[in-house]
Amino acid sequence: MIVVHHLNNSRSQRVLWLLEELGIEYELKCYERDRETMLAPPSLRQVHPLGKSPVITDADLTIAESGAIIEYIVNRYGNGRLIPPPGTPERLRYTYWLHYAEGSAMPPLVMRLIFELFGIGDSKAMDAFIAPQIKLHFDYIEGELHKSTWFAGEEFTAADIQMSFPLEI
Amino acid sequence: MIVVHHLNNSRSQRVLWLLEELGIEYELKCYERDRETMLAPPSLRQVHPLGKSPVITDADLTIAESGAIIEYIVNRYGNGRLIPPPGTPERLRYTYWLHYAEGSAMPPLVMRLIFELFGIGDSKAMDAFIAPQIKLHFDYIEGELHKSTWFAGEEFTAADIQMSFPLEI
Repeated sequence: MIVVHHLNNSRSQRVLWLLEELGIEYELKCYERDRETMLAPPSLRQVHPLGKSPVITDADLTIAESGAIIEYIVNRYGNGRLIPPPGTPERLRYTYWLHYAEGSAMPPLVMRLIFELFGIGDSKAMDAFIAPQIKLHFDYIEGELHKSTWFAGEEFTAADIQMSFPLEI
Repeated sequence: MIVVHHLNNSRSQRVLWLLEELGIEYELKCYERDRETMLAPPSLRQVHPLGKSPVITDADLTIAESGAIIEYIVNRYGNGRLIPPPGTPERLRYTYWLHYAEGSAMPPLVMRLIFELFGIGDSKAMDAFIAPQIKLHFDYIEGELHKSTWFAGEEFTAADIQMSFPLEI
């Protein structure tokens, strides 16, 4: 059975949503962030050397990285659900958003969070780089969502789940 | 024919390497960063609304995001080359590194670059967060590369090409 190593306020929320959506049984192991540093507890390092969440284990497999976990669950257990058929423009968009969420949308959002956490939110870097990047990305996302009902097209897919985290942040 | 919209000193280097490795013909369109802001020129926005590189066009398709471009080229033109067979542990690792490169390894490296660019390299955020994150990731990468010759296993794959950018940075 899949075990989800779940950290509060983290990217692992998406993995739970995906598993619920597909109706897959799983076991939940909860971890709490250190209240001062906001970092994951050392116990997560026993699951994966980076000590980050989400991580899932499935029999003898340990899988980290949100996009890779989603691809694994959908391909292994989805039976074609939540993924557009291969060779379609929707499949291409699906793969694109799976990568874009963490590769492009999240980095400026995490940067803003770090800047605020360390009290340098009112800095030239924020005004000249981070804030304009966030605006650029969200204007772009808004525009793309005017083209279709869901990120990959007219059907809800795991790409929408993957994109939920930057949007909620 | 695939057109690679190539920006100097950028992630698009990987796309060229992949195309050369697979022996695929392509057309190269070069763009130069603004020497002051280091940002991509506005002309790239005519190719893709985010105005970033890499972007490729292939007939009527426009594809952005390094991981998605690599998946597209390997799946569409690779004939099974540079990708481990489906259902193997190597394929799982391949997908993992494709996502990890931009989703986990690059963000702290980009943050360090931004901090240095804006003269805040000697800050608490750098010492307490960014530098330890970079060390954590590179210790991890080093450890993983002791387990196998290439990132996904004993064969060279497109995951190695995808991981080349954070390593070169």
